[in-house]
Amino acid sequence: MVHFSDSLSRLLAELQKLPGVGEKTALRLAFHLLKSPDNAAALADSLRDVMSRVRFCSVCFGITEDDPCRFCSEARDDGAICVVEEPQDLLAVERTRAFRGRYHVLQGALSPLNGVTPDRLRVAELMKRLEGGGVREVVIATNFSVEGEATALYLARMIKPLGVRVTRLAHGIPLGSDLEFVDAATVQRALEGRSEL
Amino acid sequence: MVHFSDSLSRLLAELQKLPGVGEKTALRLAFHLLKSPDNAAALADSLRDVMSRVRFCSVCFGITEDDPCRFCSEARDDGAICVVEEPQDLLAVERTRAFRGRYHVLQGALSPLNGVTPDRLRVAELMKRLEGGGVREVVIATNFSVEGEATALYLARMIKPLGVRVTRLAHGIPLGSDLEFVDAATVQRALEGRSEL
Repeated sequence: MVHFSDSLSRLLAELQKLPGVGEKTALRLAFHLLKSPDNAAALADSLRDVMSRVRFCSVCFGITEDDPCRFCSEARDDGAICVVEEPQDLLAVERTRAFRGRYHVLQGALSPLNGVTPDRLRVAELMKRLEGGGVREVVIATNFSVEGEATALYLARMIKPLGVRVTRLAHGIPLGSDLEFVDAATVQRALEGRSEL
Repeated sequence: MVHFSDSLSRLLAELQKLPGVGEKTALRLAFHLLKSPDNAAALADSLRDVMSRVRFCSVCFGITEDDPCRFCSEARDDGAICVVEEPQDLLAVERTRAFRGRYHVLQGALSPLNGVTPDRLRVAELMKRLEGGGVREVVIATNFSVEGEATALYLARMIKPLGVRVTRLAHGIPLGSDLEFVDAATVQRALEGRSEL
């Protein structure tokens, strides 16, 4: 491998820590930044800026500049809480404009083999919010992965005894899909969840 | 679209200026960085560090921390200069270990429609190096794009009158290729360039 200067090697190493960025992409990004010093400076500044301003909301544990965050402070339905794994999942739900309740970000999903037990997630904080009363439904919107499903089942078992309704996003065929290309397990779930026309 | 905090919006905008980074990738990168503040700080630092240390070599216009760069100062064949478009192209040639001469980085390719005329490239600087004498061959390794080919022809016309040999990297079938999947123009060039076995 060609030897790079120390500072460039360090930048390449840092870039390769980003998701989806390997050696070639890191090189491409680095050379792009070297060619546009203004962009590189602006990127460095804005990274520092974000890291100094953005924090976790003390109520829902989403990300925010103001604590509590917009979703926790604006007028919304206090009777429903949508539970997601990560802040970006919160945005995915919010984008639909179909949910007007509050949110709770677990900051991960249960994965005992990787050391992610309930105490590593924001589960205790969620239970505390529910114990305060006034919540009639918890919509669990964790991912439909093994970890996300396990987390959903775990939460349902924790929450139901409180007399709160626990719901889960529907499984089914994605909009615009060609049935023949949808995996069998999804079609099966869609069948099980079929509704009257 | 969901409204982000100002600092996060700015970071997303900066990330989207990177090649190959759209809205979704920018979000993914940003949330990754938010989850690992140490990486974000290290990335910001190393960007600043690179930008303050790395400069263009005053001889070949590649990138370097020390001027002149390693390729221009170490013991090499002064009789051959390989001309490339960008610093990363220099590395692509260097990686082969098959060229032991000097380099010259044009910092682009001719593209009159986009306002890239010869005076926007490091052509004058190349001609000056050649006028110094002692160079017997210029290997043109610009890209095999319309712009790269035009640049190669332009340079050949400029350099040949100096009595310097001008060569171009060979066209042909890439190693390991299945002939049936190689485009016709490449196969034609490979035929034209065929050699005795």
